[in-house]
Amino acid sequence: MTAAALPAQAAVSAEASFIFNTFSFLVHGFLVLWMAAGFAMLESGLVRAKSVTTILLKNVVLFAVAGVAFYLTGYKLMYDGVDGGVIGSFGVWRADDAAALAGDFSAGYAASSDWFFQMVFVATSASIISGALAERIRLWAFFAFIAFFTTLVYPIQGAWAWGGGWLSALGFTDFAGSTLVHSTGGWAALTGAIVLGARRGKYDAAGKAQRFPASSLPLATLGTFILWFGWLGFNGGSQLALGSGADAIAIANIYANTTMASAGGVLAAVILTQVIGKKIDLSMVLNGALAGLVSITAGPDTPLVGEAILIGAVGGCLVVLASPLLDRCKIDDVVGAIPVHLFAGIWGTLAVPLTHPEAGFLTQLLGVGAVGAFVVVLSSAAWLLLKFTIGLRLSQAEEALGIDRVELGTMAYPETRKAGAEAMLRS
Amino acid sequence: MTAAALPAQAAVSAEASFIFNTFSFLVHGFLVLWMAAGFAMLESGLVRAKSVTTILLKNVVLFAVAGVAFYLTGYKLMYDGVDGGVIGSFGVWRADDAAALAGDFSAGYAASSDWFFQMVFVATSASIISGALAERIRLWAFFAFIAFFTTLVYPIQGAWAWGGGWLSALGFTDFAGSTLVHSTGGWAALTGAIVLGARRGKYDAAGKAQRFPASSLPLATLGTFILWFGWLGFNGGSQLALGSGADAIAIANIYANTTMASAGGVLAAVILTQVIGKKIDLSMVLNGALAGLVSITAGPDTPLVGEAILIGAVGGCLVVLASPLLDRCKIDDVVGAIPVHLFAGIWGTLAVPLTHPEAGFLTQLLGVGAVGAFVVVLSSAAWLLLKFTIGLRLSQAEEALGIDRVELGTMAYPETRKAGAEAMLRS
Amino acid sequence: MTAAALPAQAAVSAEASFIFNTFSFLVHGFLVLWMAAGFAMLESGLVRAKSVTTILLKNVVLFAVAGVAFYLTGYKLMYDGVDGGVIGSFGVWRADDAAALAGDFSAGYAASSDWFFQMVFVATSASIISGALAERIRLWAFFAFIAFFTTLVYPIQGAWAWGGGWLSALGFTDFAGSTLVHSTGGWAALTGAIVLGARRGKYDAAGKAQRFPASSLPLATLGTFILWFGWLGFNGGSQLALGSGADAIAIANIYANTTMASAGGVLAAVILTQVIGKKIDLSMVLNGALAGLVSITAGPDTPLVGEAILIGAVGGCLVVLASPLLDRCKIDDVVGAIPVHLFAGIWGTLAVPLTHPEAGFLTQLLGVGAVGAFVVVLSSAAWLLLKFTIGLRLSQAEEALGIDRVELGTMAYPETRKAGAEAMLRS
Repeated sequence: MTAAALPAQAAVSAEASFIFNTFSFLVHGFLVLWMAAGFAMLESGLVRAKSVTTILLKNVVLFAVAGVAFYLTGYKLMYDGVDGGVIGSFGVWRADDAAALAGDFSAGYAASSDWFFQMVFVATSASIISGALAERIRLWAFFAFIAFFTTLVYPIQGAWAWGGGWLSALGFTDFAGSTLVHSTGGWAALTGAIVLGARRGKYDAAGKAQRFPASSLPLATLGTFILWFGWLGFNGGSQLALGSGADAIAIANIYANTTMASAGGVLAAVILTQVIGKKIDLSMVLNGALAGLVSITAGPDTPLVGEAILIGAVGGCLVVLASPLLDRCKIDDVVGAIPVHLFAGIWGTLAVPLTHPEAGFLTQLLGVGAVGAFVVVLSSAAWLLLKFTIGLRLSQAEEALGIDRVELGTMAYPETRKAGAEAMLRS
Repeated sequence: MTAAALPAQAAVSAEASFIFNTFSFLVHGFLVLWMAAGFAMLESGLVRAKSVTTILLKNVVLFAVAGVAFYLTGYKLMYDGVDGGVIGSFGVWRADDAAALAGDFSAGYAASSDWFFQMVFVATSASIISGALAERIRLWAFFAFIAFFTTLVYPIQGAWAWGGGWLSALGFTDFAGSTLVHSTGGWAALTGAIVLGARRGKYDAAGKAQRFPASSLPLATLGTFILWFGWLGFNGGSQLALGSGADAIAIANIYANTTMASAGGVLAAVILTQVIGKKIDLSMVLNGALAGLVSITAGPDTPLVGEAILIGAVGGCLVVLASPLLDRCKIDDVVGAIPVHLFAGIWGTLAVPLTHPEAGFLTQLLGVGAVGAFVVVLSSAAWLLLKFTIGLRLSQAEEALGIDRVELGTMAYPETRKAGAEAMLRS
Repeated sequence: MTAAALPAQAAVSAEASFIFNTFSFLVHGFLVLWMAAGFAMLESGLVRAKSVTTILLKNVVLFAVAGVAFYLTGYKLMYDGVDGGVIGSFGVWRADDAAALAGDFSAGYAASSDWFFQMVFVATSASIISGALAERIRLWAFFAFIAFFTTLVYPIQGAWAWGGGWLSALGFTDFAGSTLVHSTGGWAALTGAIVLGARRGKYDAAGKAQRFPASSLPLATLGTFILWFGWLGFNGGSQLALGSGADAIAIANIYANTTMASAGGVLAAVILTQVIGKKIDLSMVLNGALAGLVSITAGPDTPLVGEAILIGAVGGCLVVLASPLLDRCKIDDVVGAIPVHLFAGIWGTLAVPLTHPEAGFLTQLLGVGAVGAFVVVLSSAAWLLLKFTIGLRLSQAEEALGIDRVELGTMAYPETRKAGAEAMLRS
C-alpha cells in the first residue's frame, strides 16, 4: 500500500505484515460471524411469539448452509480466475500456504484467514433474507433458496466487483458491500416477499397495514447492538490489510465513520418518527441505526466523520419514509429488511462519489443496476420454481396456528405463553 | 515506554509500533462500544416490564448523542491544548495523519483510533445515568441532559486529568476512569435521582422501601456479562499503547486484575447477602461484579492478582451495604448505579496508593472531591433548569400507566403481557 | 501487498513476536471469557422458568470461584514443574516478567496473558457441570463441588498433557481440550447426574422421559451463538502463539475448521431430527452445533475444511442419537451437556489420528481413559461426600415449588409469570 520509500529500519517486515494482515482478517471476521447472532436476535424479537422458534432455527441453519456452499463452490466461483470477466472457476476451495511456510510472505496473509472473512460475508447476505419472509415461508423451501443463493447468486455477482470482474474493471467502488452484500440480500428478500405475499391479516380490506406486535423489543435491541458492534469488523476488515501504518490509519477512520454513520441513522429516525408520528418508534430507531451502517458500507474510508454522520442520517430517513411505501404496495417485510438493506444499500453505493475522488456516479449506478437485475432475475426464478414445486408458504389454517407449531412443534416461550397464545390465536 | 537499550534488530519498528498501538485502540474500543449493549440489557432487565421499551431507546439514543457531542465539541475541549489548565479548545474534531502517511510515525497511533476509543468512554459515562433515573424521567428531558453532559461536563473534568490539566500536573492517578468516567456518571445520576424524586410507591408511608420486580433477570445477567467482557477493553485499552513488550506486559496484568477484581466483587456479594439476608441476591451479585470492576479501574496495572481480588471485594461489600442506605435517604436508584459507579468509583480511586508507589492519598482525595464538586454543581443546575422549564418527570397518572405507554405507545413484550400488565396496573 | 523485496530483516523481531503472542492470548482469552455468558444464556434458556434465577447465579459464581481457585492453587499445580510426572507444585501463582522488562523476550509472552488464557479455560470446564444438574441441586453443594473441581480435579489431569506430564510424554494430543476441558467437565456432570437422580416427574411410571419445556429458546440460541463465537478464541488461542507467519497460518486454519465443524454438527442434527422425528428439533440443532465444536477441539489445526465438516457432523449425530440413550438409563441431563461435551469430546479426541500424522489411536484412547477414570473417581467421591454431609438435592416439596423460590426467593420473570407459574405448580 505505501511505505515503499521508508528508511529500512522503520518499515514492517514482510512476516510481521503477514501476521498483521492475517490477524485483521481473523479478528474482524469473528466480529462478522457474531453478526449472525445479531440477525437471529433482531428477527426473533420483531416477529410474533408464535414464529420465534422457526426464525431462530433459520438463522442457525442458514449460516451452516452458507458456509458449506461457499466452501464447495462459492469461493472459487467468486475469486478464482475471474480476470475482468463475469465468473470464476468451479471447484472446492482449499488453503495453500506453501510459499509462506517456506518463508515467502508475498501472498500477504494466510489463505484460510481470507476464506474465513469472505465466508462470514456470505452468511450475512443470506441472513438478510430470513427476516423479511418470516412467519409464513416453509422451512425447507427457505433452506433450498439459501443453498441456491449462496452457491450461485452471491458468488457470481460478487465476482464482478470483488473478484476482479468486469465491474471492478470499470471502476465500480463498493468498499465493504452496500451493494454486493446488502442490496443483494435485499433484492432476494424483495422478490421473495412479492412472490410469497403478505401475512394473513397484515392488510385489512381497505388495504391499510395492521401493526403486528413484536414479541420482544429487548431482543430486537440486543440484535441491533450486536450488528452495530459486528459492523466494525465488516467494514474495518474490508480494508483487507493491517500490515502498514497506512492500513492502520484507514481502518481507524473506518471505525470512526462506521460508528458515527449509525449515530446519524439513529438521530434521523428519532427526529423523523417524533415529528411524523408524535412518538419515537423504537423499531424504526433500530432500523435507522442499521440503515446508517448499510449506507456507509460502500465507502467508509473516505468521508470525514461529519460526512459519515450525514450519510447515515439520510439512510435513517430513507427507512422511516420508505417503510410505509412498501406497505402501500402490500409488500409485507416483517422486520424492515428491504428498506434497511436494499434502499440504504443503494443510497450508500450512490453516495460514494460524494467523498471518493475516483468513484463516478454513473459507474456506481451501473453497478447497482447490474447487480440488482441479476439478483432479481435469478431470485424470482428460484422463488417461482419453489412455489410451483415443493410449495413456498403455509396454508391459511397453518399460518393462523403459527409456523412454530406447524413446522417444528416447539414454542419459543412455552410456559409464559400457554394462555396468551391460545387467546391470541382465537383473535 | 522501554526498549531504549535494546539491540536494534530486537526492537519493534516505529511503523509496527504504530500499528500495534492503533489496533489496541480499535480492538479495545470495540469492546467498550459493546458495553453499550451491556447497559441496555442490564437496565432493561432490572426495570419493570412497563418501562422496558423506554430504557432500551434511551440506551440507543444516548450513544448517538454522546458520539455527536464528542465529535462537535467534546474531544477538543478535553484534549486540545489543556496544558496544565482547566479546559481545552472549542471546535470540531478532525483526524490528521499527514505525518504518519508521510512515513513519520512519531504520533504513535492513527488519530481516529484514539478518537474512537475516547468517544466510547463518553458513551459509557452517559449510560450510567439512564439506569438510576428509569421509569419516571421524561424522554426529551433525559436527552437534553445527556447532550449537556457529553458536550460540557464530561469533557471539562476529563481535561483536568486525562487531557493534561491541573489534576494531572498534581499527580492525580486515575488509570481508566474510576473517577473520570464512573463517579462522574454516578454524581450526575445521584443529583438526578434527588431532583427527580422516587418512583410512586417505592417507599411506603413508613418510609420503608418496597421491592419492585425486575422484569428479566436473564437480561440483567447478560448485561453484566457484556460489561465484564467489555471492561477488558475499557481497562486494557487505557494503557493507550501496545507497541512495546512492556506495554504488552502491562495490558496482560490489567486483564488478569480486571477479571479477578470482578470475581472478588462477586464473592463478597455472595457471602454478604447470604449472611445478612439468609439468601443470596442475584441482582446484588451482579452489582457486586460491576462494583469490583469499577473499583479496579483507577489502578488496574499495579496490583498483584490477590490485591485486585481484595480491591474488588471491598467494592462488592460497598454495594451490598450502601444500597440500603440510599433507600433510607429515599433516593430511588432503579438499577443500583450509584453504589456501583459512584461509591465503588471513589473507593477505587482512593485505593490506588495502596499498590501504586507514585500515587498519593491526598491527591487522590483532591481529585475525587474536585471532580465531584464540579459534576454535582453543573448537573444539579441542569436538572433543576430542566425541571422548571420543559419538566422532568411523568405525572402520577402517567407513571401508573407506565412510561412505555405514555412516552412511546409501545410495550416491550406486547403479547405475553397483555393480561399481566393490565392486572399489574390495577394493583 | 508490499514488501516483497525486503531483505533479511524480514523476520519478526523478538519483541514484536512477544507482543503478537501476548495479544493473541488476550484477544482469544476475552473470547473464551465471553463463553461464560454463552453457558449462562444456553442453560437459562433450556431450564424451566422456575429455575432460571438459580442457574444464572451459578454461572456467575462458578466463574469467580474458578478464577480464585486457579489463582490460589490451580495454575501451579497444572504447569509448574510437572516435568513428565502427574502433578505440579502447590502455591499461589504470581506473574514474573522481569526478564522481558529487561529486554530478554525469550519467555515469548507476558506471564499474565498466559495465566488469563488458561484461567478462562477452567471456568469453561466448570460451566459444563451446572447445566446437567440444573433445577434440583442445592446451591452451596454445587459451589463446594466447583471449588473442589477447579482447585484439584481440573488442574491435575490438565498437568498430565498440557502441563508436560506423563500423557504428553507418551504423545497424547489434545490441542484445545476435547478431553482435558470438555470431557473432564462432562464426566463430572455425568457422575453428578447419577448421584443426584432425575428431576421429579422427568420419567413416568413406565420409565418414559417426559419433555419439560425450555423457558426461552431465544436465550438458548443466543447462548449457542456466543459459544460458537467464543470457540474461535478457545481453539485459535490454543496455538499459544502468533509470533510467526506459521502461527498465523495455523490460527487461520483453526478458525476455518472450527467454524465449519460447527456447521457440520448443525446440518447433521437438522437432517437426523427431521428424518427420525419428522420435525427439526431446535434444541438438538443447537446442541449439534456445540457438539461439532467440541469434536474439532482436540485437533482443529490439521484437518482440511471438508474433513472438519465431517468430524463435526459425526459429533452432531452423536448428540441426536445418544440423548435418548441417556434417558433410557434415566440419567437426567437438563441441557444435554453430557452428549455434547463428554461423548463428542471422546469422539473428537479419538478422531485426531485421522488427520494428524503424529497422533496414535491407542495413545488417544489411553488419554481419554486415564482422564476419565481420574475424574470419575474423584468426582464420584466428592458428590457422595456432599450427599451424605451437607445434602445434595432439594426435597420433593421444594423441587415442586421450584429452586428459585426455595434457594433464592427471586423469580427470573416475576411479572409475566405470576399467573402462569402458579398454574404450573399446581399441575
